[in-house]
This record gives sequence, structure tokens and C-alpha cells, in this order.
Amino acid sequence: MSYGTTFAAWRDAAGQHWPAYTEHAFVQGLGDGTLPEDCFLHYLKQDYVFLMHFARAWALLVTKAETHDEMRLAAGTVHGLMNEEVALHVETCARAGIDEDTLFATREARANLAYTRYVLDAGHSGDLLDLLAALAPCVMGYGEIGTRLAATRSSDRYIGWINTYSGTVYQQICHDVGALIDAAVARRIGDAPQTSPRWPSLCDRFTMATELEVGFWDMGLNP
Amino acid sequence: MSYGTTFAAWRDAAGQHWPAYTEHAFVQGLGDGTLPEDCFLHYLKQDYVFLMHFARAWALLVTKAETHDEMRLAAGTVHGLMNEEVALHVETCARAGIDEDTLFATREARANLAYTRYVLDAGHSGDLLDLLAALAPCVMGYGEIGTRLAATRSSDRYIGWINTYSGTVYQQICHDVGALIDAAVARRIGDAPQTSPRWPSLCDRFTMATELEVGFWDMGLNP
Amino acid sequence: MSYGTTFAAWRDAAGQHWPAYTEHAFVQGLGDGTLPEDCFLHYLKQDYVFLMHFARAWALLVTKAETHDEMRLAAGTVHGLMNEEVALHVETCARAGIDEDTLFATREARANLAYTRYVLDAGHSGDLLDLLAALAPCVMGYGEIGTRLAATRSSDRYIGWINTYSGTVYQQICHDVGALIDAAVARRIGDAPQTSPRWPSLCDRFTMATELEVGFWDMGLNP
Amino acid sequence: MSYGTTFAAWRDAAGQHWPAYTEHAFVQGLGDGTLPEDCFLHYLKQDYVFLMHFARAWALLVTKAETHDEMRLAAGTVHGLMNEEVALHVETCARAGIDEDTLFATREARANLAYTRYVLDAGHSGDLLDLLAALAPCVMGYGEIGTRLAATRSSDRYIGWINTYSGTVYQQICHDVGALIDAAVARRIGDAPQTSPRWPSLCDRFTMATELEVGFWDMGLNP
Repeated sequence: MSYGTTFAAWRDAAGQHWPAYTEHAFVQGLGDGTLPEDCFLHYLKQDYVFLMHFARAWALLVTKAETHDEMRLAAGTVHGLMNEEVALHVETCARAGIDEDTLFATREARANLAYTRYVLDAGHSGDLLDLLAALAPCVMGYGEIGTRLAATRSSDRYIGWINTYSGTVYQQICHDVGALIDAAVARRIGDAPQTSPRWPSLCDRFTMATELEVGFWDMGLNP
Repeated sequence: MSYGTTFAAWRDAAGQHWPAYTEHAFVQGLGDGTLPEDCFLHYLKQDYVFLMHFARAWALLVTKAETHDEMRLAAGTVHGLMNEEVALHVETCARAGIDEDTLFATREARANLAYTRYVLDAGHSGDLLDLLAALAPCVMGYGEIGTRLAATRSSDRYIGWINTYSGTVYQQICHDVGALIDAAVARRIGDAPQTSPRWPSLCDRFTMATELEVGFWDMGLNP
Repeated sequence: MSYGTTFAAWRDAAGQHWPAYTEHAFVQGLGDGTLPEDCFLHYLKQDYVFLMHFARAWALLVTKAETHDEMRLAAGTVHGLMNEEVALHVETCARAGIDEDTLFATREARANLAYTRYVLDAGHSGDLLDLLAALAPCVMGYGEIGTRLAATRSSDRYIGWINTYSGTVYQQICHDVGALIDAAVARRIGDAPQTSPRWPSLCDRFTMATELEVGFWDMGLNP
Repeated sequence: MSYGTTFAAWRDAAGQHWPAYTEHAFVQGLGDGTLPEDCFLHYLKQDYVFLMHFARAWALLVTKAETHDEMRLAAGTVHGLMNEEVALHVETCARAGIDEDTLFATREARANLAYTRYVLDAGHSGDLLDLLAALAPCVMGYGEIGTRLAATRSSDRYIGWINTYSGTVYQQICHDVGALIDAAVARRIGDAPQTSPRWPSLCDRFTMATELEVGFWDMGLNP
């Protein structure tokens, strides 16, 4: 499923940072089942808190929308993040004896905090495009990783995670967010966005968020 | 249905501004059917734009939440505002030949703009309580008006409006928002909030938003 | 002294709203001395509160700056607004027996509140350009009015006001803000900004703020 | 010189994190002159960018002020940070052949980014007190370190740094910010702030920012 033309261009501009994120050792461990259980649980707890702040960033996007479509998709994403995407985290952690209130109160690792606060500041300091460029690596990267692991995994140990991100619901989100980004870009910087003076700084936003994803996986490997 | 103890105290503190809002001539005209059609349509168009900015303010509240409950209710309210509460507006205006894109592009009247931007600034300049105090008059006032008109109306001309705000769905929202406010107040300024140094400024926020509601009805009478 | 090419284009796009603001009856009354004293005092008190919120908006611009020059000019403007531009207000009101704490606590008129909260929301919902387009009518309009009244006034009754805005210090601010706007536009939407898809919405921001200036003068005539 | 009672209580609540910051190996190296030159230069470049974002955070505080004194001190601090506190950085780096534009464009280290974006989000998600609690460790910690190193240093190698933070100008800032915090606390949560339900979360803000200071020194040691 296509994630849009802007995303493809931003991913190219991120160079080697993109595979450093999407083919990270943590990801390989999800696919071949070698990721230790305590790393996965540590990651899930941190990722739950990440998703709460990520939902805050999508809510910030609602406040920065100019069209009905932008508002509606952003509001729907806040809802989806808080109710659907976290289901895997809540259920897996519940089986490990961790309830949702405990999850919500998880002390953030430094790499986690750095990432979400960077995204939120992208929104506060810039406009909707600056925020979207910082949000895109997480949304689409997980979509890419899920799709690849669904096709190439050699173990079913983390099949729940793989199914979540390769599944129809999540892939549709990636598609819709990709279309939103393309429309928002056209609306604000036109049909040849790569000629806009804003293009380099949007690429920088995307690349920095991609680097922060790498830091997040690194953190996951060090519980 | 109870809207909570904080709301009751804020309403008392608003003095004569509260009945100036909830018993405004526009409201009487909804109940006895004397409100001219063009006033109602003018109001609905402005109120549609109001609700979009009001949804932005509830989205801002998501970004300022400290608990899971606060986040969840705020996110649910954004969803409800954009999908349920506007249904009346969209349908009524559609019957008058106005589609939703046209509604979304309605030029804001000054009294409309003043109100929503005041609410948004309450959130940006303060914390979640400052924002809730500015949001409460609209949410609960419409709940009170709907309940009263359902019991006392002498005309069915505006029964759609009355049913929306007196209905179970909307009354439940008022109840839930009231409980959210009580919990948010207890969490931040304690069990005797009226002794907090912040109490007067929260009352001022509520009263100013109430006065801006009066301005909104005035605007509705002058299409 | 030139206020820059972007400002000139925005002013043109505002059409008749611009002279409705800069040649308002209130302005004529400043020039020919027919403005009643109580109107002027009412205006000064409201304008003092306006300038505090306007300083908040320039402080918001500091948080949205991308270059050292943008940060420095915005920070300098916050300083100038709070310390220099208000001197006229503070001194005139002091002679009328109103101290600065009382001025700060002035209850905002609706037209005042609507204006500053609109400007602040322009900044929160958009980027630095959206905020500049909403800030420009006040900064440059007062510069134009001051210059014209200095040349054409038939009375010295309000010479203090006229000298403030026609003087070198204020005219330099208008020049510097005009240069900042031109540079910020070039940096974000390029050398042919009128071909950018963002141009119409920037013009709308400028025009709405101009209309809100008209509302402010109207308010000044009704103490 | 006293930095106020609130700061003293927050520092106590930070426990061992406070000396981990103020007596960090980097600090010892400033005092005994053993800090390698490349570490100091690396730190100065990162700290310059830090101060720009710190100035943004103080500008955000201007937008969240409720009193004239709060506005004035915050605006003055933005000015001081951008014009005075960076003088040491600009001059030292100029001697090393790095001009201010290059400094401004320094790529942020992760520990730097994490800290400033955390502070900014404290302001956006909360009120003025939340922001002050996140700003205080940097302001006052440097004041304490400067004073101690001025009295105990065994080397003059970093005397410029030590003089900046032990000097009268900077110590006065610490005193004024301490008084601002005490007044802002009294205004919002009263005369017994430690009994307020908000007290623990304000202490958490202060402690987290203190931990992020430790991370900043760690980063300084690894150029």
C-alpha cells in the first residue's frame, strides 16, 4: 500500500538513517525471535508512554489544521492511538502483571523523552507541515517494518507485534496519513515542494525524528 | 443529572451573567418558536465554525492532560464534537442548501471569533484548569438550556435543537465533563478549591466565557 | 521610511479595510483635536492592555523563530513594547490619576480581547509567517498614521501621541519589522511569494487583523 | 545571595541528583583546570544552542505571565540570555575561529535536545509554575557552581566561565528569579505550597531537569 510521494522523498533524504532505523538490531530480533523477553517488555512499557505523548502531538495537530479533512484525520488518529494501537501493549503487559495505570506512570527513559518532546516542539515552533514531518517516521516506519517482518520473519515469537503493524487497520492508517501529508504539502508549498525553500528544513525534521527512532531501539536493547 | 460541584460554584460566582446567557431572548425564541428562521440559520452557520474551534480547544486540552482519564475524555469530546454534535447543524443547513464545506468556510462573526480565541488563549496561557473554566459555560449552559426548554417549550418549531441538547447523549457529556472538572480541580488545587488563591481567576475565566456566550446569542439575533 | 515590499502587498490586498482603519474617525479626531478627552483616556487604558497582550504575541514569535536575526528582533520588540511604547500611556494615565497596576488590571473591552486573542491564535495555529501577518497591521498602521498626522494635523492637542508614532524610534521599528517580514517570507516561501499557495491565507490574516483595528477604534469612540 | 525558599525546597527534594549535577566531574575539571580544551569547546558550542532554546522557554514564560512583574522579569531574562550570558560563548568561540552564525547552526547533541524540549513542553502542557520548576535547575545551579568555584578553584584556566557565573550580574539574576518563583508560587498555590496537591509534580519537574543537567555535563565530557 502506498504511503504517498512526500514520504518517499523524505525517506530518501534521510539517507542511511532510514535503514539504521527500520533494519535495527531490535527489529531483526523481533523477526527472528532472538529479542530477549525483558527487552521486549521494557520496550513495550516505554512505547506505551511514547504513544500517549504521540497522541498529544496528534492532538496538537488538530489545533493546527486548516481543513476539515486535516482536523478529522488528526482527531481520528488521536482516538486510534489511545484506543487501538495501545491494545497490544496493554494486553501483553497485563499478562506480565502490569496494569494500565502502572503503564501510564512508567518513568520515561531519556531517549523516549527526547523523541516525543522534539516532535511536540516541532509543532509548537512551526506549522502543521513541521509537525507532520516529525510525526511521519514513526507512523510509516512501523508500517514498513511490519510489512517486511510479516513476509520475512523466521519466528512467531513476536507475531502479535508483527500482526499489529502489518495488519489492514494499521496499513490503512499509513496510507491515510501519507495522503494527508501529500495534500497538506500541496496546500501549503505547492505542487513542486522540493523547490520550496522550506523543503530542506522539512527533510531535517524527518531525519532528526528518524535518528531519534534509532535511539529508541537502542534504548529498547538496554533494559 | 448533576454537572458537579465545581460547575455549580462557578455558575454562582458568575452572578447575573449566567441567566443573561441561559435565559437570553434567543433562547426564549427557541422555546416559544418566535425566533425567525434567518436568525436560526445564521446562528447555526456561526455555531458550526464555533464547534470546529471548540474542538480545537478540547484537542489542546488533550495536550495538557496529566492523567489517562483526562486524556481519554478530552479525546472523546473532540470526536463527539466533530462527528455528533455538528450533525444537527450539517443536516439543517443541508436542507437549506448549504453543504459542509461551505459551512466550514463560513466567515466568522466578531463575537464568534472573540469567544473561541479567548478559550484557546486560556489554555495556552494557563494550565488544564484555566482551559476547563473557559470551556465549561458552553458545555453545561447548553445542557441546562436544553433541559429547561424540553420541559417548558410552547412550540415544536426548534424541537431538533432542543432534543439534541436535552437528549441522553448530550446530558451524559455534561455529567462526564462535570466529573472531569471536579477530579481535575481536586488533583491540582485540593479538596477546598474555594480557598485556593487560584479560585478567583478560575471564576473570572468562567464568567468571561459566560459573557462571551451572551455576545454570541446577541450576534445570532442580528443576521 | 520604507516598511518593505511584503507589507505593501498585504496592504493592497486588504483593499478598503486599510483606509477604514488608518483614516478612521478616531484618527481624524487625533489630528484635528476634536477627539473627546474621555474617549482618548478610554482608548489609552484599553491600548495599554492591548500592548501587554501584543508583547505576549511578540514573545510567542521568539519561540517560533528559526534564525538569530528573527529571535533578536522579536526579543527586542517585546522589550520595546513593555518599556518604551507604553511610556506615553503610563504618563498620560498617571496625570489622570491612574497608576500602572490599575492600568494592567483594566477590564478588556470585547473588541480589544477579540483582536489580541486572534493574533495569538494565528501564532499558535500556524508558523512565524502567520503570526507576522497578524502583527503587521498594528505595527505599520500606527507608523503610517503617525507620519500622516505629523504632516497634516491642525491641532496640537494630541501631539504626544503623534510624536510617539511619527518619531524616529517608532519609525525605525516599522522599518526593521518590515525588513524582518521580507526576510522571513523569502526564507519560507521564496522570492515570488505571491505565487505561493500560502499567499491568500497570509493576506486573509492581515486583512482580518486590519478589520479588528477598525473595531478597536470604534470601541475607542464609545467609552 | 539568597535564591529564595521555593528553590531551597525543590533542591532538597531532588536529593542526590542535585550534587550529581553541581559537583559533576565536568564541574571539578573547570575548578582544577583539568578539563580538556576540546571538551570545553564542545560544551560551549552545545551550550550556545542550549541558551537559544532556553531563551525561547523564557519567551514562552512571557506568554504565560499573569502579572506585570512576571512579564517584565521574563522579558528581561530573554534579553539577558541573548545578549549578555552568551558573550562568553561568542568570544571564546571567536578566538577558536567559530563565528556566531556557525554557533547558531551547531547540530544539537541528543542530551542537549532532550533537555530544552522537555523544558518547553513543561511550559506548553502546564502553567507558569510548571515552566519555572523546569527552568530553575539551570539558572540556580550555575549560580551555585559559579560561587563555589570562585571560592575553591585551584586553577585559573577557566576563570572566564567562573567569573561569568559568580559575578554580580548573574548572581542578581538568580536572586531575582528566586524571588519571582516565590511570588509566583504564593500567587498560585498559596503560603504553604508544600501542602498543595501540585507540590509533588513541581518537585518532579525540578528533579527531571536536574537529571537532564547531569546528562548535559556527561555529553560535555564526550566531544
